[in-house]
Amino acid sequence: MADTYRVAGMSCGGCARAVTEAIEAAAPGATVRVDLAAATVTVEGATAAQVEGAVNGAGFEFGGAAA
Amino acid sequence: MADTYRVAGMSCGGCARAVTEAIEAAAPGATVRVDLAAATVTVEGATAAQVEGAVNGAGFEFGGAAA
Repeated sequence: MADTYRVAGMSCGGCARAVTEAIEAAAPGATVRVDLAAATVTVEGATAAQVEGAVNGAGFEFGGAAA
Repeated sequence: MADTYRVAGMSCGGCARAVTEAIEAAAPGATVRVDLAAATVTVEGATAAQVEGAVNGAGFEFGGAAA
């Protein structure tokens, strides 16, 4: 099941790639899809804690589960 | 001594922050300064190999020492 989280601070494709790589490094095998316009990431195969740690550690701001 | 490296793919402040965090994670205590216009990072306190691994792992492209 995929979960969607808010991530603040992503403003271009480079940011999207950085967030994707960080989550994949934290949770190998995870599937990550970034929506820059919505400021969200949708992730399958990682826990919320893994996503939070990866996002914050990469210099972006994890904002919890999106509604 | 600070060394300057070329890094491709950084296009905004979010990218700059992501590269900075990645290098700091790979080399705790390192000092990192990103120049977006020049597409370079200047780093003190990390080896070239640490910078290369961090930059590439974060989704950007390490281009070796800047002239």
